Amino acid sequence: MSRAGERPRGRTEETDEPVKPRGPKVVALGGGHGLYASLSALRRVTDALTAVVTVADDGGSSGRLRRELGVMPPGDLRMALAALCGDDEWGQTWRDVVQHRFRSEGALHDHAVGNLLIVALWELFGQSAPGAAGEGPGVVAGLDWVGRLLGAHGRVLPMASVPLDIVADVRGADPSRPGEVVQVRGQVACAKTPGTVEGISLIPSDPPACPEALAAIDEADWVVFGPGSWFTSVLPHLKVPELVRALRRTPARRVVALNLAPQPGETDDFSPQNHLEVLQAHAPDLRVDVVLADRGVVDEPDALEKAVGDLGGRLVLADVAAADGSPRHDPALLAQAFVQIFAD
Amino acid sequence: MSRAGERPRGRTEETDEPVKPRGPKVVALGGGHGLYASLSALRRVTDALTAVVTVADDGGSSGRLRRELGVMPPGDLRMALAALCGDDEWGQTWRDVVQHRFRSEGALHDHAVGNLLIVALWELFGQSAPGAAGEGPGVVAGLDWVGRLLGAHGRVLPMASVPLDIVADVRGADPSRPGEVVQVRGQVACAKTPGTVEGISLIPSDPPACPEALAAIDEADWVVFGPGSWFTSVLPHLKVPELVRALRRTPARRVVALNLAPQPGETDDFSPQNHLEVLQAHAPDLRVDVVLADRGVVDEPDALEKAVGDLGGRLVLADVAAADGSPRHDPALLAQAFVQIFAD
Repeated sequence: MSRAGERPRGRTEETDEPVKPRGPKVVALGGGHGLYASLSALRRVTDALTAVVTVADDGGSSGRLRRELGVMPPGDLRMALAALCGDDEWGQTWRDVVQHRFRSEGALHDHAVGNLLIVALWELFGQSAPGAAGEGPGVVAGLDWVGRLLGAHGRVLPMASVPLDIVADVRGADPSRPGEVVQVRGQVACAKTPGTVEGISLIPSDPPACPEALAAIDEADWVVFGPGSWFTSVLPHLKVPELVRALRRTPARRVVALNLAPQPGETDDFSPQNHLEVLQAHAPDLRVDVVLADRGVVDEPDALEKAVGDLGGRLVLADVAAADGSPRHDPALLAQAFVQIFAD
Repeated sequence: MSRAGERPRGRTEETDEPVKPRGPKVVALGGGHGLYASLSALRRVTDALTAVVTVADDGGSSGRLRRELGVMPPGDLRMALAALCGDDEWGQTWRDVVQHRFRSEGALHDHAVGNLLIVALWELFGQSAPGAAGEGPGVVAGLDWVGRLLGAHGRVLPMASVPLDIVADVRGADPSRPGEVVQVRGQVACAKTPGTVEGISLIPSDPPACPEALAAIDEADWVVFGPGSWFTSVLPHLKVPELVRALRRTPARRVVALNLAPQPGETDDFSPQNHLEVLQAHAPDLRVDVVLADRGVVDEPDALEKAVGDLGGRLVLADVAAADGSPRHDPALLAQAFVQIFAD
């Protein structure tokens, strides 16, 4: 039993993780579960890690917070912070806290605790600037403070300084008119459309990028795209003009980590090559240095190798899928693959 | 500008607070703003500090959480934790975060962020035991984890392991029948009744006390009652039989810190002597060693000294009120008074 005088203290030292070299400067772009996977691997590989995260969610807890409080959707940022938590008791406890969702018949149902915490810090530090809900230096300061609480192994930044809406060009959204292409607005609507997504754009179309994210890209050794929901988590970054300019001018090499399975709704019939094609279509001049794919899910390695070569890059096949057969990346295996890629 | 690699780290060392001796083992009983005041002072005096806090609130954010999620009302516990935050940037930032309330036209309006955080940890650690909503070891573990986050200078415990309801005997609750005594249930109703509160009881009438709180009282050098809303924050502890037994058997000396002004609604016409009388009426056998009152607000020092003497204690008059004339205790002055009392 604890005595009053033996009160708990601040964060304990992590003694259960191996000492690792600082590692290369890595920027990981994405959102949702895909970015969670890449960050869970990359935090084992380097201490110089920055996540640049989509802020276009309009569903669930994030969508409600966005509408009720006029803030950026915090959900993808929260998941990225959770992925950066350490393996010690402190990191795992706070990861579980920020990921915890209330369950009730009432007003708090489904709100993720980390979303509420991030938004509170934004309100505290000020996150409103004239003309742009969510803009302001407080957004980054708030995320940095949550990162300090969690002992996060890296930094989490938004891909833009304002909340975004994704607009998808969808063929056959109305099943009775299969050839027609219509625009569908909102991340939830895009992810759920019965049609085929052909491309995306953003509202606003030229949002201010987060200055700290631009600086991280400028200084990076490696930039990692994916895995993740291709149209709603990976490609949105390529529709922020300021971000694309930084991605073009950085001396960093670029890795694309492909998904283990098509995303229902978004990329049902997509081959790995299709994923690369739409990536290139959304940012035509962007060089790709390495494409990482799981050895077990690539049906046509030669065709994929040719497609990667056409982009100017090289294909790395590795075993990165979870052993249980689910379409999830194993963090340790994915970390090994990144170590190999970064060493070459 | 921060670089990705220079990521924020866990809690910084406090270098702006004076090194203090460990100090006596002190248990402070109360709730709300009164306990906030005593803890803000006591954390400057000792590092062996435990707050034992009312869990009977049924209004505002706490009341809604209690009803929606079936948990103990966290608000008084949150305020106590906030009071124990240090004066460094870490402590002040997290104090502001846990005290922050959302403002909106929607479902989150008026929820205090710290309340949501405490409840999340309770849900995570498990806080339900058969037959008693809110019971279970997870309640204390959750509070300890929030304390670790905040770097709290002391420990915060509930006065019971189940949520409580205060029932007040109120004379003249119905102004048309001024002599009638009726029972009013609920902390909000008790605080707002137009009648005169004559005494309180609890539902359930013999709730399980928090074992860690009993142990802290057993081991204490000093127990501090008040200041605070007399009937809804200070006296409820004396209606928990297990807690009263611990308060009787502890070798600790007992201090009663009186309020600076009557509490509107609860103790409108109460003199300092009246406060002591109802305290004694609620726990007849409880010895009082010291009564601390502000020199400036005691109109009849001789009468008060006699009342204190009748309880077997001594009166300490000191200047403990805030300089701005508001009925608030100045934490530094109140700390000085406690130092003097504990040294005698």
